[in-house]
Amino acid sequence: MVSGLDEALTFVLELDRLKSVERRTPLLDGSRCETDAEHSWHVATAALALADYAPAGVSLPRVIAMLLIHDIVEIDAGDTPLYEEHGDQEDREQRAADRLFGLLPQARGAELRALWDEFEAGESADARFARALDRFMPLLHDIRTGGGSWTRTPGLTVGAVRARVSVIERGSPELWAYAQRVLDEAVERGYLLA
Amino acid sequence: MVSGLDEALTFVLELDRLKSVERRTPLLDGSRCETDAEHSWHVATAALALADYAPAGVSLPRVIAMLLIHDIVEIDAGDTPLYEEHGDQEDREQRAADRLFGLLPQARGAELRALWDEFEAGESADARFARALDRFMPLLHDIRTGGGSWTRTPGLTVGAVRARVSVIERGSPELWAYAQRVLDEAVERGYLLA
Repeated sequence: MVSGLDEALTFVLELDRLKSVERRTPLLDGSRCETDAEHSWHVATAALALADYAPAGVSLPRVIAMLLIHDIVEIDAGDTPLYEEHGDQEDREQRAADRLFGLLPQARGAELRALWDEFEAGESADARFARALDRFMPLLHDIRTGGGSWTRTPGLTVGAVRARVSVIERGSPELWAYAQRVLDEAVERGYLLA
Repeated sequence: MVSGLDEALTFVLELDRLKSVERRTPLLDGSRCETDAEHSWHVATAALALADYAPAGVSLPRVIAMLLIHDIVEIDAGDTPLYEEHGDQEDREQRAADRLFGLLPQARGAELRALWDEFEAGESADARFARALDRFMPLLHDIRTGGGSWTRTPGLTVGAVRARVSVIERGSPELWAYAQRVLDEAVERGYLLA
């Protein structure tokens, strides 16, 4: 007989694999790229620090919960770099969500899966703020590391990056205004094509 | 003129350094030890999965916020392995908390510092559950990796480990019962001295 605690711990132990999924985003000291687990911590903690820039009515605890689980499907599906084509990524992520949230006791699994679905849909105010933070963080890393993932993508234009991060505008006007200044600086420094 | 957003982002960027603080706890695949940032993500996400094992009245959002920031002082003070002497660790961590939370706009910094102080004090129900999770996670890693950090500490007894993790009992009776079974198994397998 497998208890609810055994099921929940199977999920918790499986999450360990997110520490072995590497992103394209460099650490600020340039020593290596961050892992998905590190990114998930950083962006969830950034939500705490940047709570003043969430639109009125946003539930910070729901945003943080979304950010903690938003990338766990990459345990199965791998990281999709922001400036590359996606292929069958969506199908693979849906299958990964079925498997991973399915490890949990039914009620808890359904609750966290609904939260992940809400993040993916990006329609609610909570999901929009969470997605804004998720896209905002790599901008900080790329501008602070001499171009970071941008300069490793040949021919990347500021327009292409602006389109990729435009969800920031819907999630937080103040972070979007800051992002514009980052992108202008990226062009001035030659990290992105005008 | 430095804006509140600039101050908050200085804090967010400084947090990146937690990705370079290595713990003694091995990843479950044994490939390397986890970083503090990875641990902080894992334990905060475990709080979501293990919410059913929090005593009545515990605020899960406060627990998760505590877990997200509980180790950031190790950016300055370094990791203190669970089964070693502490020296002047407490002083160093207090100075680190002054510096790091002082980077934030005043109100936000005071709020997060109070949360960190509450975790450190370990008296509130929220802090007790957060501390229980923080001590529970390494037990899972150590038992699943052939002894993990235990077997790298010569002469370590199950009594010494039980004393170190006894905060689990005050935070979550169900997790404490599970921890007892883990410790019994650790002795049976020869990872810890009886």
